[in-house]
Amino acid sequence: MAQMSHRAAMLLLLVAAVLSVTAAASAASSRSNPHPLDPLTPEEVTAVRAAVLASPLVPARPLTFHYVGLDEPDKADVLAYAYGGTGTGGLSSRPPLPRRALVVARAGGQSHELRVDIASNGTSATVLSHAVHRGAGFPILTLEEQFAAVALPPAYPPFVDSVRRRGVDMDDVLCAVFPVGWFGGGGAGAGAPKRVAKMLCFVAGPTANFYARPIEGVTMVVDLDAMAIVGYRDRVTYPVPKAEGTDYRAGKTGPPLAGLQPAPGVAVQPEGRGFHIDGHVVRWANWEFHVGFDMRAGTVISLASVHDADAGTRRRVLYRGFVSEVFVPYMDPVEEWYYRTFLDAGEYGLGLWAFPLQPGADCPANAAYFDGSYAGQDGKPVSGENRICVFERYAGDVAWRHTEAGFPARLITEVRPDVTLVVRMVVSPGNYDYILDWEFKTSGSIKFVVSLTGLLEVKGTSYTHADELTVDAHGSLVSENTLAIYHDHYVTYHLDLDIDGTNNSFVKNIITARRNTGDPATGGADTPRRSYWTVRREVAETESDGQADVNAGPADLLFVNPGKKTRMGHEVGYRLIPSGATAASVLADDDCPQRRASYTKKQVWVTPYSKAEKWASGLYADQSTGADSLTAWSRRNRGIRDEDIVLWYTLGLHHIPYQEDFPVMPTLSGGFELRPSNFFERNPILRIRPPSPHGASANCSCYSR
Amino acid sequence: MAQMSHRAAMLLLLVAAVLSVTAAASAASSRSNPHPLDPLTPEEVTAVRAAVLASPLVPARPLTFHYVGLDEPDKADVLAYAYGGTGTGGLSSRPPLPRRALVVARAGGQSHELRVDIASNGTSATVLSHAVHRGAGFPILTLEEQFAAVALPPAYPPFVDSVRRRGVDMDDVLCAVFPVGWFGGGGAGAGAPKRVAKMLCFVAGPTANFYARPIEGVTMVVDLDAMAIVGYRDRVTYPVPKAEGTDYRAGKTGPPLAGLQPAPGVAVQPEGRGFHIDGHVVRWANWEFHVGFDMRAGTVISLASVHDADAGTRRRVLYRGFVSEVFVPYMDPVEEWYYRTFLDAGEYGLGLWAFPLQPGADCPANAAYFDGSYAGQDGKPVSGENRICVFERYAGDVAWRHTEAGFPARLITEVRPDVTLVVRMVVSPGNYDYILDWEFKTSGSIKFVVSLTGLLEVKGTSYTHADELTVDAHGSLVSENTLAIYHDHYVTYHLDLDIDGTNNSFVKNIITARRNTGDPATGGADTPRRSYWTVRREVAETESDGQADVNAGPADLLFVNPGKKTRMGHEVGYRLIPSGATAASVLADDDCPQRRASYTKKQVWVTPYSKAEKWASGLYADQSTGADSLTAWSRRNRGIRDEDIVLWYTLGLHHIPYQEDFPVMPTLSGGFELRPSNFFERNPILRIRPPSPHGASANCSCYSR
Repeated sequence: MAQMSHRAAMLLLLVAAVLSVTAAASAASSRSNPHPLDPLTPEEVTAVRAAVLASPLVPARPLTFHYVGLDEPDKADVLAYAYGGTGTGGLSSRPPLPRRALVVARAGGQSHELRVDIASNGTSATVLSHAVHRGAGFPILTLEEQFAAVALPPAYPPFVDSVRRRGVDMDDVLCAVFPVGWFGGGGAGAGAPKRVAKMLCFVAGPTANFYARPIEGVTMVVDLDAMAIVGYRDRVTYPVPKAEGTDYRAGKTGPPLAGLQPAPGVAVQPEGRGFHIDGHVVRWANWEFHVGFDMRAGTVISLASVHDADAGTRRRVLYRGFVSEVFVPYMDPVEEWYYRTFLDAGEYGLGLWAFPLQPGADCPANAAYFDGSYAGQDGKPVSGENRICVFERYAGDVAWRHTEAGFPARLITEVRPDVTLVVRMVVSPGNYDYILDWEFKTSGSIKFVVSLTGLLEVKGTSYTHADELTVDAHGSLVSENTLAIYHDHYVTYHLDLDIDGTNNSFVKNIITARRNTGDPATGGADTPRRSYWTVRREVAETESDGQADVNAGPADLLFVNPGKKTRMGHEVGYRLIPSGATAASVLADDDCPQRRASYTKKQVWVTPYSKAEKWASGLYADQSTGADSLTAWSRRNRGIRDEDIVLWYTLGLHHIPYQEDFPVMPTLSGGFELRPSNFFERNPILRIRPPSPHGASANCSCYSR
Repeated sequence: MAQMSHRAAMLLLLVAAVLSVTAAASAASSRSNPHPLDPLTPEEVTAVRAAVLASPLVPARPLTFHYVGLDEPDKADVLAYAYGGTGTGGLSSRPPLPRRALVVARAGGQSHELRVDIASNGTSATVLSHAVHRGAGFPILTLEEQFAAVALPPAYPPFVDSVRRRGVDMDDVLCAVFPVGWFGGGGAGAGAPKRVAKMLCFVAGPTANFYARPIEGVTMVVDLDAMAIVGYRDRVTYPVPKAEGTDYRAGKTGPPLAGLQPAPGVAVQPEGRGFHIDGHVVRWANWEFHVGFDMRAGTVISLASVHDADAGTRRRVLYRGFVSEVFVPYMDPVEEWYYRTFLDAGEYGLGLWAFPLQPGADCPANAAYFDGSYAGQDGKPVSGENRICVFERYAGDVAWRHTEAGFPARLITEVRPDVTLVVRMVVSPGNYDYILDWEFKTSGSIKFVVSLTGLLEVKGTSYTHADELTVDAHGSLVSENTLAIYHDHYVTYHLDLDIDGTNNSFVKNIITARRNTGDPATGGADTPRRSYWTVRREVAETESDGQADVNAGPADLLFVNPGKKTRMGHEVGYRLIPSGATAASVLADDDCPQRRASYTKKQVWVTPYSKAEKWASGLYADQSTGADSLTAWSRRNRGIRDEDIVLWYTLGLHHIPYQEDFPVMPTLSGGFELRPSNFFERNPILRIRPPSPHGASANCSCYSR
């Protein structure tokens, strides 16, 4: 410390005072005047539960809660609340809007949909409407019923036999619940499908990575309403892969290897954080938005607007955005694998499977956190700490720069470092982990990044070397007796863009090659140049024009407000820039899993806004048939020109596993950017401040306790 | 400071001691035992100059130096030097190899190619060979001749007239040199093309952004050898765009806007830097590589190898990688624009147009820097400070993680933060700025990122509003009288991969849809699943198989060593993952600019290694015809299976400008990743250390002087 004393004359700026983790979160639940898009508070969930259980509309018992979430007010009301009558200005505090909840419950073998009004005191509620779901599909599986289901096999004699025959100790066995998918038939009435799931089991033993050790060949079917095993098949026996080399826990992998370690880095903000959290509203630099949490969608970003410093106005960009579905089909047609065609949001719930973020690891030291509470199966609120983090990122990148060497005897260099704001959630639905980032940039861009990590879903096999494989094994041999099955990941975003207002159009600016005609009247010129490209503009009229395969040919895909023009006469807009992960599904159109998620054949769909159209594979995604899906809605071919439109973007990866992905996969990322394109009159960050003196300074230090 | 004292009992770790900027750089030039791939030192350049000027082989004067660079030893010798006879082990210090230089000079109206041997004392040299270049094309333009050329117009009467007629003050005028491209004809002998360039002029006046204010319609042709204006045309007059709103310098744009500012971030490394620089060799975590500098290619990364901690061996990944060419064709066929089809590396030199990086802005505070010295036109060494920076990046990202919720009553979360190593150069060839990053990851990946920023190349026009445009204007109206012309950027990397050894193969693992036959003998199964995909493996035999359009269909593109297999029997390999910026040229094949850079129609080319095949558009790129180019070499259709092969990857963007890109463009990025894929036996960073206690700590502070 002595060395420090001679620095006494230096200006001590600010020790980076990171807010306590709970400060931001508790602020949200203690407010008496909730924002209309705030997630339900624990108190509200409690009131909703009481109202549902007290309602004579659903007398059957037991009643289980599968989804409890905000039934948000009509968009017009929210816009009026947020921006006032003019549709501009910041998120303000106005009289609260009525608070309502949507509840999906199971009782008496039926799915019930209830809309519940919450009194303004937040502690009592009334059921407004009730309907029994008559179509295909079932609600999200609750965590509790999955835990109940996996407790059944150890007491189920045929399974006990199967385990014994394999020489496995039942104490080492863990099971997991897998949705059955949908393979034709179904519908309501007599002979209607039951709410069943598959159960598959694994051997943990000494490893935490039980997914690496399947008891391959044994499939159980559990009736989730009856909570009983109703189907059992022990079809084939393969060796259980070894535990050795599968664990990923510190201390179980051997000590850290000296030759492998970079020096740790810490993000320090000498002037403190630059963002402010007011309830669920985040204000940072020129951005303002609302961060919500939903047990199905996870993070929900609403009312994102950007301050146009040159114009002196706040301008709308996005009304509401969230991950609508995550489709993960595996590519092995055999009995134990053919149905693995997961819809992670609709079957499992992204918010339900988001767990506490590790400060300093999942998010840097300068992060703040939001809780994400939800309703348990019994309808009671479950607190969920640290489900979403928000932090300013300085990755050493540049926002803009130029070096000008054209002036005699002087060199001009202007550089502006790039600090961005990240909103992150991590979802771990079973074996995989999805790191889902929203990155806001002062330039007006929003970047979406999905990073995949976690564990592979593997199949037990007798193979121990690739040379033994003679027929298609549907996967990669990543370790002895361990096939990592080929699969895809499709993450579908629902993005209700409101570019500078509600009504927008979707425009494809298609890069089109031209021969030089030599004739100025057609854009040619009498020069030796023979070809060039120009832009052919297509404005989508109806939903059939609203689809795009981003790999089909070069084009800028824009979302414009045809009612607002720049000084130069361009419609104000944002454009979509894919950045890797542009795979589309190659499954057959008539294959049932593809019918449920047929929108994965194109990355881009544009639909008119409808409050009911949130979930790309339907509200009841478990055993869904595709009848309620983005493709089905879009088949109506509604008008989308100068309408309130929604962009559905599907980011996709075909995953051929490699040995490096085992036993835990190094992060693989893909994403896309929404970038202002004639939205601003000029570069909106021309007047961002030059580099901070801290940037070049090494006078930063860290202490540990 | 008083507040600090009570922390005396805490463990003071390490104040992030950033090495002085010059330490790393001066280390490189003062070594007596250079690495065979080290760039020429200033002393060596001096010796080479003396040898060339003293040589009777080129008696003509004046003699100008256009390229002076390392003529690297044969690959086999370098490999033996670096890895010893076995081809494994680290970069070691062995007896130095002979040092040679390649010189391209102009004298007597001819291009001369000289190979020069440098004595082991580094201070004297001998010309080994000399040849006159007889084919098409000319060497890189020197900076000095460009400065000399732009001094001519103010004294050239027709230009003085043109300027006066436009009401412009000659003191405000700046000119720049533009290569003429190639539009047919040419070759050596009588009537051979002269070494000419176009000159275009601009009005600076009060703005630094003179590119925004073209004197449109006036074209000069300068004979660079004679240094005289030999062509002049004032074809058309357009208003010179206003200066207002074009400047980007701090203090010229108005004060920073309060509502726009994020809080600054600083990268702090509490335990100091994790990398070590020994001359030009960088060692960091499991990586080791050599950083070179070339006046044409800019950064050159060589002998990159990764330590395989599980195997206890160092393994080769890349012999040599650099940006071979940057092709930037504009899309306006008119007289003043048709020829703007830049080859930035071959015409201007990426290293020549790399300027000092701004510490704390271009690179974070924890960066170290390399100099890049080069030879001036007179052959004398020119020192270039801070041309390349190296820094550890902690962006808040995750290397791998998993949360396991499957165990009853316990939640396992393991997270490893991702710290990477970035090697960065910024090239500003005229109006544009390219930020060129190599990012090394402990997972074994190398990520390549190109970020575009800087100024648009604009055309003066009479238009002041988009509604006035009736014919194709070939660009976007970004400001009054200012058309930003459509253009492309193609950055072509030369990547001599040596995956675990010299001989590699190129494999396309093509994602192939299959119907379920129901027959296990063909990979089917008796289940309701109707389709799936599998992998069809194609090994490229010859160069015609070595081309790939990455947008044509889904495939993993691998580079494997067929002589090395993993424990599981897979050929060890790396795969190429594009991440945005996958545009390919749409120019006509018979258009001359496209003939010079015809490789830009496919992102991927694979060729057998040849020391002579470095520059995708030829060694003499100025006025090149495509006769010496990647496409021409590849037409020989040589074998590339189990050979020493080179990957040429072209990253491409079609740029439709938007108003936000004016007056300086917010950074737009694209890139690709080379990712180990069955290279390691398992996740190579399983044993990376868990999060540092600093990661979650807020006990970091910064001071400013």
